[in-house]
Amino acid sequence: MTESKTVTIHTHQTAPTQFVEAKGLRFAYRRFGKSSGVPLVFNMHFTGTMDHWDPAVTDGLARDREVILFDNAGISSSSGEVPNSIEEMAANAAAFIRAVGLPQVDVLGFSLGGLVAQELAVAAPELVRRLILLGTGPRSGEGMASLTPEAQKIFGARYAEPDHLWLKVFFTPSEFSQAAGRAYLKRFRLRVDDREPDVSDKVAAAQVEALTKWGAPRENPFEYLKAIAQPTLVVNGDRDVIICSMNSWILQQHLPNAQLILYPDANHGSQYQYPERFVRHASLFLSEEDARASARH
Amino acid sequence: MTESKTVTIHTHQTAPTQFVEAKGLRFAYRRFGKSSGVPLVFNMHFTGTMDHWDPAVTDGLARDREVILFDNAGISSSSGEVPNSIEEMAANAAAFIRAVGLPQVDVLGFSLGGLVAQELAVAAPELVRRLILLGTGPRSGEGMASLTPEAQKIFGARYAEPDHLWLKVFFTPSEFSQAAGRAYLKRFRLRVDDREPDVSDKVAAAQVEALTKWGAPRENPFEYLKAIAQPTLVVNGDRDVIICSMNSWILQQHLPNAQLILYPDANHGSQYQYPERFVRHASLFLSEEDARASARH
Repeated sequence: MTESKTVTIHTHQTAPTQFVEAKGLRFAYRRFGKSSGVPLVFNMHFTGTMDHWDPAVTDGLARDREVILFDNAGISSSSGEVPNSIEEMAANAAAFIRAVGLPQVDVLGFSLGGLVAQELAVAAPELVRRLILLGTGPRSGEGMASLTPEAQKIFGARYAEPDHLWLKVFFTPSEFSQAAGRAYLKRFRLRVDDREPDVSDKVAAAQVEALTKWGAPRENPFEYLKAIAQPTLVVNGDRDVIICSMNSWILQQHLPNAQLILYPDANHGSQYQYPERFVRHASLFLSEEDARASARH
Repeated sequence: MTESKTVTIHTHQTAPTQFVEAKGLRFAYRRFGKSSGVPLVFNMHFTGTMDHWDPAVTDGLARDREVILFDNAGISSSSGEVPNSIEEMAANAAAFIRAVGLPQVDVLGFSLGGLVAQELAVAAPELVRRLILLGTGPRSGEGMASLTPEAQKIFGARYAEPDHLWLKVFFTPSEFSQAAGRAYLKRFRLRVDDREPDVSDKVAAAQVEALTKWGAPRENPFEYLKAIAQPTLVVNGDRDVIICSMNSWILQQHLPNAQLILYPDANHGSQYQYPERFVRHASLFLSEEDARASARH
């Protein structure tokens, strides 16, 4: 069994769900891709499980590195409760990464997961080599003290097909974007066996509480970003109505070493609208030498 | 002569200066690189000649396409006068492109050249397949009704080495950025033979007049951008003090199909600070299928 495992290269569709314990919690996770270099750990959005990642993105990035998906505490088949603060979510993520035995990782966070990724870089900088922040924003970001009116409407509505929620959350109303959305819905359902159960009803309330505490107004809200020295790639759509695109601009302007990419006619899930383009940009970013570090030598 | 020319692949250093006539003007230009696909025409910044392009950028892009540098009317060894409007500069650029016999090109414009590139896409859309806009801004952009205070100070100062002007215009004061600037100064002086003479004293005044007319406040200033249907890549540094970085955000938000990339700790010449990164991003953009066009098939 161990022998066959070392020669099988798993994919998003085939990677078995594994479990690891830390802090009295049992974390569900999957790892796959090329097992060399620094692995990339994915941090999921509001009410999502690791099955909501787009295989075009995860498998695309796994061509050159190991990819690790996980459900944080209280999500799906991971045990425990969802904490009501980003700080505790980040502490749980750090415990998970250490429990898997990884001294340093690259961290990708999408939306809520992007807040966790920032806090992880602040609280456990030694764990984080590089950051990718997708469709996310800073503490006290624009429109982040509560769900935006659009987010309240979209998450509050009922859909004939529950998955169609994501067509509204991640894609713009344009025909082009909606077609890309339908392709994404097909891709994230491709994995049939060993899927994670949907989150329990308690999850949304705790996550909203954490989100709104993070988004609440405070003095010098962007000051903490100066402490994130890791090279960072900030990516968003130009029409994000969930965490408005201006927040990506604010992140870039206040992080010491961040590159910003905005994609056209794209809402909150721009990396799912342009998965090949995003994989190329993210791969370039992750494989590039740190220009600053190399300038010092 | 003709025979040897077809087998020689010229570079930024070796491409001979050629001349072509149109509209009673004689345009100086150079072409080099892989002669297949759609050529990329470079539009130069304030008071620059075609010798101010960075060979790391031009030769980098010329690996996969033909690159065409030229001096617009009244610049260096091109004949005529520098017009006092962007519209006339764009009309001259269009005349040059047609005179070289090219039915359609990709257009790169940097700073003042980025204004010319936008106007070229508006006035002669059939000539332009894709646009790359570097360190530039829209009509009535922020701080564009005159030279910015920083630009006035930088262009008004005297420098022990005249080339050191560009360390201030294109790079931030950080040690990292200044080191990249010194590397750029070496690269753009690598071509020794057959350089273009510096521009005459009259050039700056006419260009400033054109810049300030473009930047003057008007009603619905960004409306014209809706007519630019070409896929566009907008690139800038995050600390541009010559045409402030916010103008790149405005371009992206108002162009129908634009991708924005901002580079960290970079001023007006971010593509010279990160030439390899920029060449990769620009090459990806130019070689990519148009996602919208392919979605229609």
